[in-house]
Amino acid sequence: MAGDGIRALVFDVFGTVVDWRSSVIRELAAVGARLGVTADWGAFADAWRYEGYIGGIGRVNRGEWPFMTADEIHRRKLEELLPEYGLAGLTEEERADLNRVWHRLDPWPDSVPGLWRLKQRFVISTLSNGNVALLVNMAKRAGLPWDCVLGADVLGAFKPRAEAYLAGARLLGLQPGEVMLVAAHKADLRAAQAAGLRTAFVPRPAEAGPNVEVDLAPDPAFDLHAADFLELARLLGG
Amino acid sequence: MAGDGIRALVFDVFGTVVDWRSSVIRELAAVGARLGVTADWGAFADAWRYEGYIGGIGRVNRGEWPFMTADEIHRRKLEELLPEYGLAGLTEEERADLNRVWHRLDPWPDSVPGLWRLKQRFVISTLSNGNVALLVNMAKRAGLPWDCVLGADVLGAFKPRAEAYLAGARLLGLQPGEVMLVAAHKADLRAAQAAGLRTAFVPRPAEAGPNVEVDLAPDPAFDLHAADFLELARLLGG
Repeated sequence: MAGDGIRALVFDVFGTVVDWRSSVIRELAAVGARLGVTADWGAFADAWRYEGYIGGIGRVNRGEWPFMTADEIHRRKLEELLPEYGLAGLTEEERADLNRVWHRLDPWPDSVPGLWRLKQRFVISTLSNGNVALLVNMAKRAGLPWDCVLGADVLGAFKPRAEAYLAGARLLGLQPGEVMLVAAHKADLRAAQAAGLRTAFVPRPAEAGPNVEVDLAPDPAFDLHAADFLELARLLGG
Repeated sequence: MAGDGIRALVFDVFGTVVDWRSSVIRELAAVGARLGVTADWGAFADAWRYEGYIGGIGRVNRGEWPFMTADEIHRRKLEELLPEYGLAGLTEEERADLNRVWHRLDPWPDSVPGLWRLKQRFVISTLSNGNVALLVNMAKRAGLPWDCVLGADVLGAFKPRAEAYLAGARLLGLQPGEVMLVAAHKADLRAAQAAGLRTAFVPRPAEAGPNVEVDLAPDPAFDLHAADFLELARLLGG
Protein backbone atom coordinates (compact mmCIF):
# COMPACT_ATOMS: atom_id res chain seq x y z
CA MET A 1 0.00 0.00 0.00
CA ALA A 2 1.10 3.54 -0.74
CA GLY A 3 1.40 4.40 2.95
CA ASP A 4 3.61 1.49 3.97
CA GLY A 5 6.42 2.58 6.24
CA ILE A 6 5.04 6.08 6.63
CA ARG A 7 4.39 7.15 10.21
CA ALA A 8 3.78 10.87 9.85
CA LEU A 9 2.37 13.20 7.23
CA VAL A 10 3.73 16.72 7.42
CA PHE A 11 2.02 19.52 5.57
CA ASP A 12 2.97 22.67 3.82
CA VAL A 13 0.28 25.09 4.99
CA PHE A 14 -0.03 28.34 2.98
CA GLY A 15 -1.68 27.33 -0.28
CA THR A 16 -1.73 23.60 0.50
CA VAL A 17 -4.06 23.59 3.54
CA VAL A 18 -5.43 27.14 3.48
CA ASP A 19 -6.53 29.54 0.74
CA TRP A 20 -4.39 32.52 1.73
CA ARG A 21 -5.25 34.70 -1.25
CA SER A 22 -9.05 34.85 -0.93
CA SER A 23 -8.80 35.28 2.84
CA VAL A 24 -6.31 38.16 2.61
CA ILE A 25 -8.19 39.91 -0.21
CA ARG A 26 -11.42 39.71 1.79
CA GLU A 27 -9.90 41.36 4.85
CA LEU A 28 -8.07 44.01 2.80
CA ALA A 29 -11.31 44.88 1.02
CA ALA A 30 -13.09 45.19 4.38
CA VAL A 31 -10.40 47.54 5.69
CA GLY A 32 -10.58 49.54 2.45
CA ALA A 33 -14.38 49.77 2.61
CA ARG A 34 -14.21 51.05 6.19
CA LEU A 35 -11.78 53.80 5.12
CA GLY A 36 -13.48 54.53 1.79
CA VAL A 37 -10.47 53.31 -0.19
CA THR A 38 -10.73 51.18 -3.32
CA ALA A 39 -7.70 49.47 -4.80
CA ASP A 40 -6.52 46.26 -6.45
CA TRP A 41 -6.52 44.14 -3.30
CA GLY A 42 -5.45 41.08 -5.27
CA ALA A 43 -2.28 42.90 -6.28
CA PHE A 44 -1.75 43.90 -2.62
CA ALA A 45 -2.18 40.27 -1.49
CA ASP A 46 0.18 39.00 -4.21
CA ALA A 47 2.87 41.56 -3.39
CA TRP A 48 2.54 40.79 0.34
CA ARG A 49 2.85 37.08 -0.32
CA TYR A 50 5.37 36.82 -3.13
CA GLU A 51 7.65 39.86 -2.82
CA GLY A 52 7.17 40.17 0.93
CA TYR A 53 6.98 36.70 2.44
CA ILE A 54 8.61 34.51 -0.20
CA GLY A 55 11.17 37.21 -0.95
CA GLY A 56 11.92 37.69 2.75
CA ILE A 57 12.46 33.97 3.32
CA GLY A 58 14.89 33.98 0.40
CA ARG A 59 16.81 36.84 2.03
CA VAL A 60 17.00 34.99 5.35
CA ASN A 61 18.08 31.78 3.61
CA ARG A 62 20.81 33.67 1.69
CA GLY A 63 22.02 35.26 4.93
CA GLU A 64 21.05 38.78 3.88
CA TRP A 65 18.60 39.12 6.77
CA PRO A 66 18.83 37.62 10.26
CA PHE A 67 16.30 34.92 11.12
CA MET A 68 12.90 36.40 11.80
CA THR A 69 9.42 34.96 12.06
CA ALA A 70 6.77 34.95 9.34
CA ASP A 71 4.87 37.50 11.45
CA GLU A 72 7.89 39.82 11.35
CA ILE A 73 8.47 39.33 7.61
CA HIS A 74 4.78 40.01 6.95
CA ARG A 75 4.88 43.16 9.06
CA ARG A 76 7.90 44.58 7.21
CA LYS A 77 6.19 44.27 3.86
CA LEU A 78 2.88 45.54 5.22
CA GLU A 79 4.56 48.80 6.24
CA GLU A 80 5.75 49.25 2.65
CA LEU A 81 2.41 48.39 1.08
CA LEU A 82 0.04 50.45 3.25
CA PRO A 83 1.02 53.87 1.87
CA GLU A 84 1.16 52.51 -1.69
CA TYR A 85 -2.47 51.43 -1.39
CA GLY A 86 -3.90 54.47 0.39
CA LEU A 87 -3.96 52.85 3.83
CA ALA A 88 -1.28 54.95 5.54
CA GLY A 89 -3.87 56.13 8.06
CA LEU A 90 -4.11 52.80 9.89
CA THR A 91 -3.22 52.99 13.58
CA GLU A 92 -0.61 50.74 15.17
CA GLU A 93 -3.36 48.55 16.60
CA GLU A 94 -5.05 48.25 13.19
CA ARG A 95 -1.73 47.39 11.53
CA ALA A 96 -0.98 44.69 14.09
CA ASP A 97 -4.45 43.25 13.60
CA LEU A 98 -4.24 43.33 9.80
CA ASN A 99 -0.85 41.62 9.96
CA ARG A 100 -2.56 38.79 11.83
CA VAL A 101 -4.83 38.13 8.83
CA TRP A 102 -2.28 35.36 8.12
CA HIS A 103 -3.49 33.72 11.37
CA ARG A 104 -7.07 33.80 10.02
CA LEU A 105 -6.85 32.04 6.67
CA ASP A 106 -9.69 29.79 5.55
CA PRO A 107 -9.01 26.13 4.79
CA TRP A 108 -9.81 24.56 1.42
CA PRO A 109 -13.15 22.69 1.64
CA ASP A 110 -11.47 19.27 1.82
CA SER A 111 -8.78 20.24 4.33
CA VAL A 112 -10.60 19.69 7.63
CA PRO A 113 -12.44 16.46 6.69
CA GLY A 114 -9.34 15.14 4.93
CA LEU A 115 -7.07 15.84 7.89
CA TRP A 116 -9.52 14.09 10.25
CA ARG A 117 -9.36 10.98 8.06
CA LEU A 118 -5.59 11.06 7.70
CA LYS A 119 -5.25 11.60 11.46
CA GLN A 120 -6.85 8.21 12.12
CA ARG A 121 -3.83 6.45 10.67
CA PHE A 122 -0.90 8.87 10.78
CA VAL A 123 0.62 11.55 12.94
CA ILE A 124 -0.29 14.78 11.14
CA SER A 125 1.79 17.90 11.62
CA THR A 126 2.45 21.20 9.96
CA LEU A 127 5.90 21.65 8.41
CA SER A 128 5.56 25.29 7.55
CA ASN A 129 7.67 28.40 7.24
CA GLY A 130 5.02 30.10 9.37
CA ASN A 131 5.74 30.55 13.07
CA VAL A 132 4.12 28.36 15.71
CA ALA A 133 1.84 31.09 17.07
CA LEU A 134 0.49 31.85 13.59
CA LEU A 135 -0.10 28.16 12.88
CA VAL A 136 -1.74 27.48 16.26
CA ASN A 137 -4.09 30.44 15.93
CA MET A 138 -4.95 29.43 12.36
CA ALA A 139 -5.67 25.83 13.38
CA LYS A 140 -7.81 26.92 16.32
CA ARG A 141 -9.97 29.17 14.14
CA ALA A 142 -10.21 26.80 11.15
CA GLY A 143 -10.52 23.53 13.10
CA LEU A 144 -7.37 21.94 11.69
CA PRO A 145 -6.80 18.89 13.94
CA TRP A 146 -2.99 18.77 13.99
CA ASP A 147 -1.23 16.30 16.25
CA CYS A 148 1.78 18.62 16.26
CA VAL A 149 2.50 22.15 15.06
CA LEU A 150 5.98 22.68 13.64
CA GLY A 151 7.00 26.04 12.24
CA ALA A 152 10.25 27.67 11.24
CA ASP A 153 10.83 29.07 14.74
CA VAL A 154 11.14 25.55 16.15
CA LEU A 155 12.56 23.91 13.02
CA GLY A 156 15.43 26.40 13.13
CA ALA A 157 15.40 27.00 9.37
CA PHE A 158 13.10 27.95 6.54
CA LYS A 159 12.20 25.52 3.79
CA PRO A 160 13.58 24.72 1.24
CA ARG A 161 16.73 24.31 3.37
CA ALA A 162 17.30 20.63 4.11
CA GLU A 163 17.65 21.39 7.84
CA ALA A 164 13.96 22.34 8.02
CA TYR A 165 12.78 18.94 6.74
CA LEU A 166 15.33 17.00 8.77
CA ALA A 167 14.44 18.87 11.95
CA GLY A 168 10.80 17.96 11.37
CA ALA A 169 11.60 14.25 11.19
CA ARG A 170 13.93 14.46 14.20
CA LEU A 171 11.38 16.29 16.38
CA LEU A 172 8.80 13.62 15.52
CA GLY A 173 11.30 10.91 16.47
CA LEU A 174 11.28 9.46 12.96
CA GLN A 175 13.66 8.73 10.12
CA PRO A 176 13.19 11.02 7.09
CA GLY A 177 11.86 8.09 5.05
CA GLU A 178 9.06 7.54 7.59
CA VAL A 179 7.76 11.06 6.93
CA MET A 180 5.78 12.22 3.88
CA LEU A 181 5.53 15.88 2.95
CA VAL A 182 2.18 16.92 1.50
CA ALA A 183 2.43 20.10 -0.55
CA ALA A 184 0.98 21.97 -3.50
CA HIS A 185 4.38 23.28 -4.56
CA LYS A 186 6.91 21.23 -6.48
CA ALA A 187 9.99 23.09 -5.25
CA ASP A 188 9.02 22.28 -1.66
CA LEU A 189 8.48 18.61 -2.56
CA ARG A 190 11.75 18.37 -4.46
CA ALA A 191 13.69 19.77 -1.51
CA ALA A 192 11.93 17.37 0.89
CA GLN A 193 12.74 14.48 -1.42
CA ALA A 194 16.39 15.50 -1.56
CA ALA A 195 16.40 15.42 2.26
CA GLY A 196 15.05 11.85 2.21
CA LEU A 197 11.34 12.42 2.86
CA ARG A 198 8.51 10.81 0.92
CA THR A 199 6.33 13.18 -1.09
CA ALA A 200 2.67 13.71 -1.99
CA PHE A 201 1.71 16.38 -4.51
CA VAL A 202 -1.73 17.91 -4.00
CA PRO A 203 -2.10 20.69 -6.57
CA ARG A 204 -4.26 23.65 -5.61
CA PRO A 205 -5.23 25.29 -8.91
CA ALA A 206 -7.19 28.06 -7.14
CA GLU A 207 -4.30 29.17 -4.94
CA ALA A 208 -2.54 31.71 -7.07
CA GLY A 209 -3.85 34.90 -8.54
CA PRO A 210 -4.34 35.41 -12.27
CA ASN A 211 -0.81 36.81 -12.63
CA VAL A 212 0.98 33.72 -11.39
CA GLU A 213 1.42 30.61 -13.46
CA VAL A 214 1.17 27.43 -11.41
CA ASP A 215 2.59 24.07 -12.46
CA LEU A 216 -0.22 21.59 -11.81
CA ALA A 217 1.05 18.67 -13.90
CA PRO A 218 1.62 15.37 -12.08
CA ASP A 219 5.29 14.50 -11.70
CA PRO A 220 6.28 10.83 -11.49
CA ALA A 221 9.20 11.79 -9.25
CA PHE A 222 6.78 12.21 -6.35
CA ASP A 223 5.41 9.19 -4.48
CA LEU A 224 1.77 10.24 -4.67
CA HIS A 225 -0.44 12.63 -6.57
CA ALA A 226 -3.91 13.45 -5.22
CA ALA A 227 -6.56 15.98 -6.19
CA ASP A 228 -7.30 16.81 -2.55
CA PHE A 229 -6.83 15.52 1.00
CA LEU A 230 -9.79 13.12 0.76
CA GLU A 231 -8.28 11.44 -2.27
CA LEU A 232 -4.96 11.39 -0.45
CA ALA A 233 -6.63 9.54 2.45
CA ARG A 234 -8.05 6.98 0.01
CA LEU A 235 -4.67 6.48 -1.65
CA LEU A 236 -3.08 5.97 1.76
CA GLY A 237 -5.69 3.42 2.80
CA GLY A 238 -7.33 5.75 5.36
CA MET B 1 -13.54 36.03 36.16
CA ALA B 2 -10.52 33.92 37.04
CA GLY B 3 -9.54 33.48 33.38
CA ASP B 4 -9.55 37.18 32.43
CA GLY B 5 -6.53 38.08 30.35
CA ILE B 6 -5.46 34.46 29.95
CA ARG B 7 -5.10 33.29 26.35
CA ALA B 8 -3.32 29.97 26.74
CA LEU B 9 -3.14 27.22 29.33
CA VAL B 10 0.12 25.29 29.29
CA PHE B 11 0.38 22.00 31.10
CA ASP B 12 2.99 20.08 32.95
CA VAL B 13 2.42 16.54 31.67
CA PHE B 14 4.07 13.75 33.73
CA GLY B 15 1.98 13.48 36.88
CA THR B 16 -0.31 16.39 36.03
CA VAL B 17 -1.98 15.02 32.87
CA VAL B 18 -0.89 11.38 32.92
CA ASP B 19 -0.41 8.76 35.63
CA TRP B 20 3.15 7.77 34.81
CA ARG B 21 3.68 5.47 37.79
CA SER B 22 0.79 3.02 37.28
CA SER B 23 1.47 2.90 33.54
CA VAL B 24 5.18 2.17 33.96
CA ILE B 25 4.62 -0.42 36.69
CA ARG B 26 2.07 -2.22 34.51
CA GLU B 27 4.46 -2.53 31.57
CA LEU B 28 7.41 -3.51 33.77
CA ALA B 29 5.31 -6.23 35.39
CA ALA B 30 4.29 -7.52 31.95
CA VAL B 31 7.92 -7.68 30.82
CA GLY B 32 8.84 -9.41 34.09
CA ALA B 33 6.00 -11.92 33.72
CA ARG B 34 7.12 -12.74 30.18
CA LEU B 35 10.66 -13.44 31.42
CA GLY B 36 9.59 -15.12 34.68
CA VAL B 37 11.10 -12.34 36.80
CA THR B 38 9.41 -10.90 39.86
CA ALA B 39 10.66 -7.72 41.47
CA ASP B 40 9.51 -4.51 43.12
CA TRP B 41 8.38 -2.78 39.94
CA GLY B 42 7.23 0.24 41.92
CA ALA B 43 10.80 0.75 43.11
CA PHE B 44 12.03 0.37 39.51
CA ALA B 45 9.51 2.96 38.29
CA ASP B 46 10.42 5.38 41.10
CA ALA B 47 14.16 5.04 40.48
CA TRP B 48 13.62 5.51 36.74
CA ARG B 49 11.55 8.63 37.33
CA TYR B 50 13.22 10.31 40.28
CA GLU B 51 16.89 9.32 40.13
CA GLY B 52 16.90 8.86 36.37
CA TYR B 53 14.72 11.51 34.79
CA ILE B 54 14.49 14.19 37.49
CA GLY B 55 18.13 13.63 38.42
CA GLY B 56 19.22 13.78 34.77
CA ILE B 57 17.38 17.06 34.16
CA GLY B 58 19.14 18.49 37.20
CA ARG B 59 22.50 17.46 35.74
CA VAL B 60 21.68 19.09 32.40
CA ASN B 61 20.46 22.25 34.14
CA ARG B 62 23.67 22.42 36.22
CA GLY B 63 25.78 21.98 33.09
CA GLU B 64 27.14 18.58 34.16
CA TRP B 65 25.56 16.87 31.15
CA PRO B 66 25.00 18.25 27.65
CA PHE B 67 21.41 18.83 26.60
CA MET B 68 19.68 15.57 25.76
CA THR B 69 16.08 14.54 25.28
CA ALA B 70 13.85 12.87 27.87
CA ASP B 71 14.03 9.73 25.71
CA GLU B 72 17.83 9.77 26.01
CA ILE B 73 17.78 10.44 29.76
CA HIS B 74 15.27 7.62 30.25
CA ARG B 75 17.40 5.24 28.21
CA ARG B 76 20.56 5.97 30.23
CA LYS B 77 18.84 5.10 33.48
CA LEU B 78 17.08 2.09 31.96
CA GLU B 79 20.47 0.58 31.10
CA GLU B 80 21.48 0.90 34.77
CA LEU B 81 18.25 -0.51 36.13
CA LEU B 82 17.77 -3.56 33.87
CA PRO B 83 20.59 -5.67 35.38
CA GLU B 84 19.66 -4.58 38.92
CA TYR B 85 16.15 -5.98 38.41
CA GLY B 86 17.00 -9.20 36.61
CA LEU B 87 16.16 -7.91 33.13
CA ALA B 88 19.65 -7.86 31.62
CA GLY B 89 18.49 -10.33 28.98
CA LEU B 90 16.35 -7.85 27.07
CA THR B 91 17.37 -7.37 23.43
CA GLU B 92 18.10 -3.96 21.95
CA GLU B 93 14.69 -3.92 20.32
CA GLU B 94 12.99 -4.80 23.62
CA ARG B 95 14.97 -2.11 25.46
CA ALA B 96 14.02 0.53 22.88
CA ASP B 97 10.38 -0.51 23.16
CA LEU B 98 10.40 -0.51 26.96
CA ASN B 99 12.00 2.94 26.95
CA ARG B 100 9.01 4.14 24.95
CA VAL B 101 6.67 3.21 27.82
CA TRP B 102 6.93 6.92 28.61
CA HIS B 103 5.13 7.54 25.28
CA ARG B 104 2.30 5.24 26.44
CA LEU B 105 1.19 6.71 29.75
CA ASP B 106 -2.49 6.71 30.66
CA PRO B 107 -4.24 10.00 31.40
CA TRP B 108 -6.02 10.67 34.69
CA PRO B 109 -9.78 10.10 34.25
CA ASP B 110 -10.58 13.83 34.11
CA SER B 111 -7.72 14.77 31.75
CA VAL B 112 -9.31 14.15 28.35
CA PRO B 113 -12.80 15.53 29.14
CA GLY B 114 -11.27 18.44 31.05
CA LEU B 115 -8.90 19.35 28.21
CA TRP B 116 -11.76 19.27 25.70
CA ARG B 117 -13.69 21.77 27.84
CA LEU B 118 -10.68 24.01 28.40
CA LYS B 119 -9.87 23.88 24.67
CA GLN B 120 -13.19 25.55 23.85
CA ARG B 121 -12.00 28.78 25.43
CA PHE B 122 -8.19 28.68 25.53
CA VAL B 123 -5.22 27.55 23.51
CA ILE B 124 -4.04 24.42 25.33
CA SER B 125 -0.46 23.25 25.01
CA THR B 126 2.00 21.02 26.77
CA LEU B 127 4.90 22.77 28.52
CA SER B 128 6.83 19.68 29.43
CA ASN B 129 10.39 18.53 29.91
CA GLY B 130 9.47 15.61 27.66
CA ASN B 131 10.51 15.76 24.01
CA VAL B 132 8.05 16.54 21.24
CA ALA B 133 7.99 13.00 19.81
CA LEU B 134 7.22 11.50 23.23
CA LEU B 135 4.45 14.03 23.84
CA VAL B 136 2.92 13.63 20.37
CA ASN B 137 2.87 9.83 20.62
CA MET B 138 1.39 10.03 24.12
CA ALA B 139 -1.33 12.45 22.99
CA LYS B 140 -2.20 10.33 19.96
CA ARG B 141 -2.64 7.19 22.07
CA ALA B 142 -4.43 8.84 24.99
CA GLY B 143 -6.58 11.25 22.97
CA LEU B 144 -5.17 14.43 24.52
CA PRO B 145 -6.49 17.21 22.25
CA TRP B 146 -3.57 19.65 22.39
CA ASP B 147 -3.58 22.73 20.19
CA CYS B 148 0.22 22.75 20.39
CA VAL B 149 2.90 20.40 21.69
CA LEU B 150 5.89 22.11 23.31
CA GLY B 151 8.68 20.05 24.83
CA ALA B 152 12.19 20.78 26.03
CA ASP B 153 13.69 20.10 22.58
CA VAL B 154 11.84 23.10 21.12
CA LEU B 155 11.78 25.20 24.30
CA GLY B 156 15.57 25.00 24.39
CA ALA B 157 15.71 24.46 28.15
CA PHE B 158 14.35 22.23 30.87
CA LYS B 159 11.99 23.53 33.52
CA PRO B 160 12.45 24.97 36.13
CA ARG B 161 14.76 27.28 34.17
CA ALA B 162 12.99 30.55 33.40
CA GLU B 163 13.94 30.23 29.70
CA ALA B 164 11.64 27.21 29.32
CA TYR B 165 8.55 29.13 30.50
CA LEU B 166 9.46 32.28 28.56
CA ALA B 167 10.09 30.30 25.37
CA GLY B 168 6.64 28.74 25.74
CA ALA B 169 4.96 32.15 25.90
CA ARG B 170 7.08 33.49 23.04
CA LEU B 171 6.34 30.53 20.75
CA LEU B 172 2.62 31.01 21.40
CA GLY B 173 2.96 34.71 20.54
CA LEU B 174 1.86 35.77 24.03
CA GLN B 175 3.13 37.77 26.98
CA PRO B 176 4.01 35.61 30.01
CA GLY B 177 1.06 37.06 31.95
CA GLU B 178 -1.34 35.82 29.24
CA VAL B 179 -0.25 32.23 29.88
CA MET B 180 -1.25 30.04 32.85
CA LEU B 181 0.77 26.98 33.83
CA VAL B 182 -1.32 24.07 35.12
CA ALA B 183 0.74 21.69 37.24
CA ALA B 184 0.59 19.26 40.15
CA HIS B 185 4.01 20.32 41.40
CA LYS B 186 4.61 23.46 43.43
CA ALA B 187 8.25 23.92 42.40
CA ASP B 188 7.19 24.03 38.74
CA LEU B 189 4.45 26.54 39.53
CA ARG B 190 6.77 28.74 41.62
CA ALA B 191 9.32 28.88 38.80
CA ALA B 192 6.60 29.72 36.26
CA GLN B 193 5.32 32.46 38.55
CA ALA B 194 8.82 33.90 38.90
CA ALA B 195 8.97 34.05 35.08
CA GLY B 196 5.70 36.02 35.01
CA LEU B 197 3.18 33.29 34.16
CA ARG B 198 -0.15 32.79 35.93
CA THR B 199 -0.50 29.53 37.85
CA ALA B 200 -3.09 26.83 38.56
CA PHE B 201 -2.34 24.10 41.09
CA VAL B 202 -4.07 20.78 40.41
CA PRO B 203 -2.79 18.32 43.02
CA ARG B 204 -2.60 14.68 41.99
CA PRO B 205 -2.55 12.73 45.25
CA ALA B 206 -2.29 9.37 43.46
CA GLU B 207 0.80 10.33 41.41
CA ALA B 208 3.64 9.36 43.71
CA GLY B 209 4.49 6.03 45.13
CA PRO B 210 4.20 5.27 48.85
CA ASN B 211 7.81 6.33 49.42
CA VAL B 212 7.39 9.90 48.23
CA GLU B 213 5.70 12.56 50.28
CA VAL B 214 3.65 14.95 48.15
CA ASP B 215 2.65 18.45 49.23
CA LEU B 216 -1.06 18.68 48.38
CA ALA B 217 -1.97 21.73 50.49
CA PRO B 218 -3.45 24.71 48.64
CA ASP B 219 -1.07 27.66 48.43
CA PRO B 220 -2.56 31.17 48.22
CA ALA B 221 0.45 32.26 46.15
CA PHE B 222 -1.04 30.48 43.12
CA ASP B 223 -3.86 32.05 41.12
CA LEU B 224 -6.10 28.98 41.13
CA HIS B 225 -6.46 25.69 42.95
CA ALA B 226 -8.59 22.93 41.43
CA ALA B 227 -9.17 19.30 42.31
CA ASP B 228 -9.04 18.25 38.64
CA PHE B 229 -9.28 19.63 35.09
CA LEU B 230 -13.09 19.67 35.13
CA GLU B 231 -13.10 21.88 38.24
CA LEU B 232 -10.42 24.01 36.58
CA ALA B 233 -12.72 24.48 33.55
CA ARG B 234 -15.54 25.56 35.87
CA LEU B 235 -13.28 28.02 37.70
CA LEU B 236 -12.15 29.47 34.37
CA GLY B 237 -15.72 29.88 33.15
CA GLY B 238 -15.44 27.10 30.55
